[in-house]
Amino acid sequence: MEKLLVILTFAGALLALLFAVFNARKVLKFSEGTDRMKKISLSIRKGASAFLKRQYKIVLIFFGVMFVLLGIMAILGLLTPFVPFAFVTGGFFSALSGYIGMKIATLSNARTANACQEGLNRGLRVAFSAGSVMGFTVVGLGLLDISIWFFLLKFVFQLDPRAISSSMLTFGMGASSMALFARVGGGIFTKAADVGADLVGKVEAGIPEDDPRNPAVIADNVGDNVGDVAGMGADLYESYVGSIISACALGVSAFGSLSAMALPMLLAALGVLCSVFGTFLVRTKEGAGQKQLLRALSRGTNFSAILIALASFPLVYFVLGKENQTIYFAILAGLVAGVLIGQATEYFTSDSYKPTRNLAGTSETGTATIIIGGLSVGMLSTLLPIVIVAICVLVAYFVSGGAGSASMGLYGIALAAVGMLSTLGITLATDAYGPVADNAGGIAEMAGLDQKVRQRTDALDSLGNTTAATGKGFAIGSAALTALALMASYIDKVKSIDGGSAKIANLNITNPTVLVGLFIGACLPFVFAALTMNSVGRAAQSVVKEVRRQFKEISGLMEGKADPDYASCVDLCTKASLREMVMPTVVAVIVPVIVGLILGCAGVVGMLAGATASGFLMAVFMSNSGGAWDNAKKYIESGVHGGKGSDCHKAAVVGDTVGDPFKDTSGPAINILIKLLSMVSIVFAAIVVNFSIL
Amino acid sequence: MEKLLVILTFAGALLALLFAVFNARKVLKFSEGTDRMKKISLSIRKGASAFLKRQYKIVLIFFGVMFVLLGIMAILGLLTPFVPFAFVTGGFFSALSGYIGMKIATLSNARTANACQEGLNRGLRVAFSAGSVMGFTVVGLGLLDISIWFFLLKFVFQLDPRAISSSMLTFGMGASSMALFARVGGGIFTKAADVGADLVGKVEAGIPEDDPRNPAVIADNVGDNVGDVAGMGADLYESYVGSIISACALGVSAFGSLSAMALPMLLAALGVLCSVFGTFLVRTKEGAGQKQLLRALSRGTNFSAILIALASFPLVYFVLGKENQTIYFAILAGLVAGVLIGQATEYFTSDSYKPTRNLAGTSETGTATIIIGGLSVGMLSTLLPIVIVAICVLVAYFVSGGAGSASMGLYGIALAAVGMLSTLGITLATDAYGPVADNAGGIAEMAGLDQKVRQRTDALDSLGNTTAATGKGFAIGSAALTALALMASYIDKVKSIDGGSAKIANLNITNPTVLVGLFIGACLPFVFAALTMNSVGRAAQSVVKEVRRQFKEISGLMEGKADPDYASCVDLCTKASLREMVMPTVVAVIVPVIVGLILGCAGVVGMLAGATASGFLMAVFMSNSGGAWDNAKKYIESGVHGGKGSDCHKAAVVGDTVGDPFKDTSGPAINILIKLLSMVSIVFAAIVVNFSIL
Repeated sequence: MEKLLVILTFAGALLALLFAVFNARKVLKFSEGTDRMKKISLSIRKGASAFLKRQYKIVLIFFGVMFVLLGIMAILGLLTPFVPFAFVTGGFFSALSGYIGMKIATLSNARTANACQEGLNRGLRVAFSAGSVMGFTVVGLGLLDISIWFFLLKFVFQLDPRAISSSMLTFGMGASSMALFARVGGGIFTKAADVGADLVGKVEAGIPEDDPRNPAVIADNVGDNVGDVAGMGADLYESYVGSIISACALGVSAFGSLSAMALPMLLAALGVLCSVFGTFLVRTKEGAGQKQLLRALSRGTNFSAILIALASFPLVYFVLGKENQTIYFAILAGLVAGVLIGQATEYFTSDSYKPTRNLAGTSETGTATIIIGGLSVGMLSTLLPIVIVAICVLVAYFVSGGAGSASMGLYGIALAAVGMLSTLGITLATDAYGPVADNAGGIAEMAGLDQKVRQRTDALDSLGNTTAATGKGFAIGSAALTALALMASYIDKVKSIDGGSAKIANLNITNPTVLVGLFIGACLPFVFAALTMNSVGRAAQSVVKEVRRQFKEISGLMEGKADPDYASCVDLCTKASLREMVMPTVVAVIVPVIVGLILGCAGVVGMLAGATASGFLMAVFMSNSGGAWDNAKKYIESGVHGGKGSDCHKAAVVGDTVGDPFKDTSGPAINILIKLLSMVSIVFAAIVVNFSIL
Repeated sequence: MEKLLVILTFAGALLALLFAVFNARKVLKFSEGTDRMKKISLSIRKGASAFLKRQYKIVLIFFGVMFVLLGIMAILGLLTPFVPFAFVTGGFFSALSGYIGMKIATLSNARTANACQEGLNRGLRVAFSAGSVMGFTVVGLGLLDISIWFFLLKFVFQLDPRAISSSMLTFGMGASSMALFARVGGGIFTKAADVGADLVGKVEAGIPEDDPRNPAVIADNVGDNVGDVAGMGADLYESYVGSIISACALGVSAFGSLSAMALPMLLAALGVLCSVFGTFLVRTKEGAGQKQLLRALSRGTNFSAILIALASFPLVYFVLGKENQTIYFAILAGLVAGVLIGQATEYFTSDSYKPTRNLAGTSETGTATIIIGGLSVGMLSTLLPIVIVAICVLVAYFVSGGAGSASMGLYGIALAAVGMLSTLGITLATDAYGPVADNAGGIAEMAGLDQKVRQRTDALDSLGNTTAATGKGFAIGSAALTALALMASYIDKVKSIDGGSAKIANLNITNPTVLVGLFIGACLPFVFAALTMNSVGRAAQSVVKEVRRQFKEISGLMEGKADPDYASCVDLCTKASLREMVMPTVVAVIVPVIVGLILGCAGVVGMLAGATASGFLMAVFMSNSGGAWDNAKKYIESGVHGGKGSDCHKAAVVGDTVGDPFKDTSGPAINILIKLLSMVSIVFAAIVVNFSIL
């Protein structure tokens, strides 16, 4: 049984990675186009690589320090000796996911632009294949990491199930730390460059977006790759692995056996297969319009979702037996919830629906009203997702037998998250091709290609926005469920430590330490959002000054006679974002330990619950406000309310600029934050149990 | 003992009310100035009265429906027969507090302007006396209501302590409902008029603030009175009464005796005395500067606070005996926490400190950056208050013996809130005089008084902003503590119902119904903020259109030859705000019942905890963002970053406009919301216990 499990999970990993290679080869066969295009693509690639390398150096210091710290704890007997190594592995694979995604994205941007010269469909194929590389790399590496560690812990070191799952949670912490660095660092980079380029280029100098005269234009395109691609890759690696290992851990405490641990792993492996099948449906006839393309993408993701919904029914039967068949409905609830949250997200942020259209209308009375309007759209949009998650939690809990045994119910909640992410291979592919298309548009503009090409890349990009909404639904929904599962894992962990049970005996919500923890936890996403927004603001201001300087000092720049100094902007963004990314991550790692040492384990549980609730709300609020502003601006650009250049458009541009750090830096980072808090709490549980004041 | 209690509380009420009358007579002795000033003041008074009368008509329908509903429940035996009457009384006194405050404020605005002709100090005396009328009316009516009901329930109907406190909680619900109507309705009115007047008058037509040619200028001044005065009066009546009765209720369940119930009532009565003494210190020599005035105000509030801190030590000794003397430190913790939160608020929102000054600097790079900056200042500013409240909760809980008996600890938390609000008489006076000074400035402008007068009213107004920060600290801090106390009261209430204990047996934070309740509760402040902001937006847009119409259609208006139609703007704001205020309040009343019927009592407790945590954060965030933007604008107007009329100033004006609904509508309303949710839950507890699904 255990051997079969390792083999199957490993096979899933292998399938995903091979499929990624297959797609990568497909992409690389396409031509990069003219020399100018190659040159632009190369400088983007160089900038992105340079950023990541410097980022990894800083991250390495963090991981080094943590490794030593965890090592000392292991020597003192507070942790198993595998923990420091697992921690580092998680970070390594998370970084690798981001790196490979970035690499293929920067190799595909010019190719996509070139393919768009021939037709929309051909462009889609290149971009989507690039997205698939990313999607399947993430799930492949995730499963690889899990299967290797499982193999080592089970067969080489022969640990019992509880020790296995506990050690495996540590590489979740490594992955989460890395993901936070990647999301925050990349997010600050991309938004600083974007805001800087827009504020001086578009608003002050009056030149179009992606104009080669803008010194920040390369930085802007580099940003798409390090933020939206590398950041997202690391982020989703973390989500994927986090959901699986937290389900494994809860499975062990619910069933005490390896089979409950096997289910999430096999479900994920099966999901790879379903995703691969799905990708083959993403193709249309030549000459297809935008609507048909969207249908092609949805067909792929929907098919994969239905496939896994069907296939997991017998899977539950074989793994857990007939008496636990109802647990299947927890998986199903997760899948359905993911789709529904995606649809709710789309309703609030797409310009096909009332909220965003009305938001565009508020620009008629000026900037202040569109800002107020966007904030309230975002806040209002939290209601549906929270109700969906609430129903999903209750269903998953009770169908899994939570009424009889709480740990069974919690296992069900964790499985819902795994179900939601099981087809990540394809959902991430439809999400990740967006930035590639965005970059292709930039290259088309800078290389002076036909307007038609830009229109096609824009069509791909806007298509990507719609599919990204679904992707966001899965990411946010799974984050909430995984965070709840990790909270339960934390409680298990504390109970397994000598003297821990007493520390956690009173988790009653009226216990003041739980309540105080709840308050402080709920505050963390607010503080975290403030820190990251400030970082973007500071970094953007330095870019603004540099771009202004270049416009002033480089003569002939505006006339197109001299080249701007792109590299200095890239360098500036790199430095600024690396400087700014450290603080938020360190806060996220230190706070749970401090809260634990003061308030004790019950306070930590309160903190995790508070951070999960308010973090979920803040993430949805900020992502959707940002999305609605973005699309309201695009809607106005399509010709309503005076169209491009009108006062309404100017107001909408301000909204979009405010929304940028909302949706691409703070919002997604909060998703990671809530899980990292739990992972850190789990890893340092022994210290808190032994040394806390309360 | 009980008779003495009634007599002392009644004496406190009487003292407060007499002192209010004394101050009112003092104010009315001053002259209203020229005929023009009288006329302007009269039209503001008429507009405000007309609004309140129409508001009360709508509120009456709501109270009528609720009275019938509660009456039916009482007949069915689900409630004591006093509940419907107590509910209505609470609403009545809350409305009366607002009405008297509005009345005296509109009678004092012209008098303040006129007094400012003679000097700053004289102006302060009129305005502060008007504020005192409001402050002492609120506490006087609060204590009157409490002492009358206590007298009736104890001596006429001879109920036992538990039934007394339970019935008294119902007039808290009445007061909260009324307060929410007043805050939301008044808040929408004032901000719609303000935004409408500013957007068309200042931005489009380029005429100064409070220019008599602006058709919305009277509506704007009416708004200050119905929102900032009448709304605040009803709001703080609710806070004051809510904190006392929740402490009474918890006292009964902790001690089972009337003496624990007496302590909060006597503490409040003693607070009146201390506040009266404090007001006599608010005076300066003629010719005093702004700094000396501020010192005079602080001297008054600080003296009162120290007095109550000293006086409550023996009070605890006499009422609860030596063995419970440590409970005194809970009261002290509340007082100190209130002051500290006020200072934290001031730090983040006053232009004497770095955050607001830096925020003003972000206007250099445009509107988007000052919006992002203001949002992050507000979010970051949640950290200190939450830590202060957390420490206060822990201290209050443990010094009151919470480690031995949870209900003792919870009683301590409730007493901390009472301690915080015990000197409300004077803190509210320093808070409420601000809108009077604001109005006086408007009258000075419209009546064409000397520029010197306007400068003096502005000085008073800006002084008011600083003292208001302290007031806000008390309001927000006490709301969180009171909400926690009410949550505990809810649990007590459920346990006292047949079959209730079973429903509430598992309040473990990992119980999925508690968790789901927590998620939904945390979502409510977001949704509520969105609803109220949208309401302001819609109402403001209709004002904008009307003002634009008048500028276009009334010939000679801009030249000052024709008068604008002020009444139509007032009427429009009235209609719009009354239409918009119903929905948020009804939501607040219905949601706890629906959540209860689906999730059961444990879900309700989760909901209350979630709403308290996220509501506290949202209230602080929104109030402080708004305050920081407001003062950043004023800071720029003082001459930095280009001063008035510069691009930076324009960006700051947008920030201020976004901040208006933040700080004056949504933020304060959330404070009421979190308590109303608990009160509604308590009143309908019997229905939930008997009919809930889970």
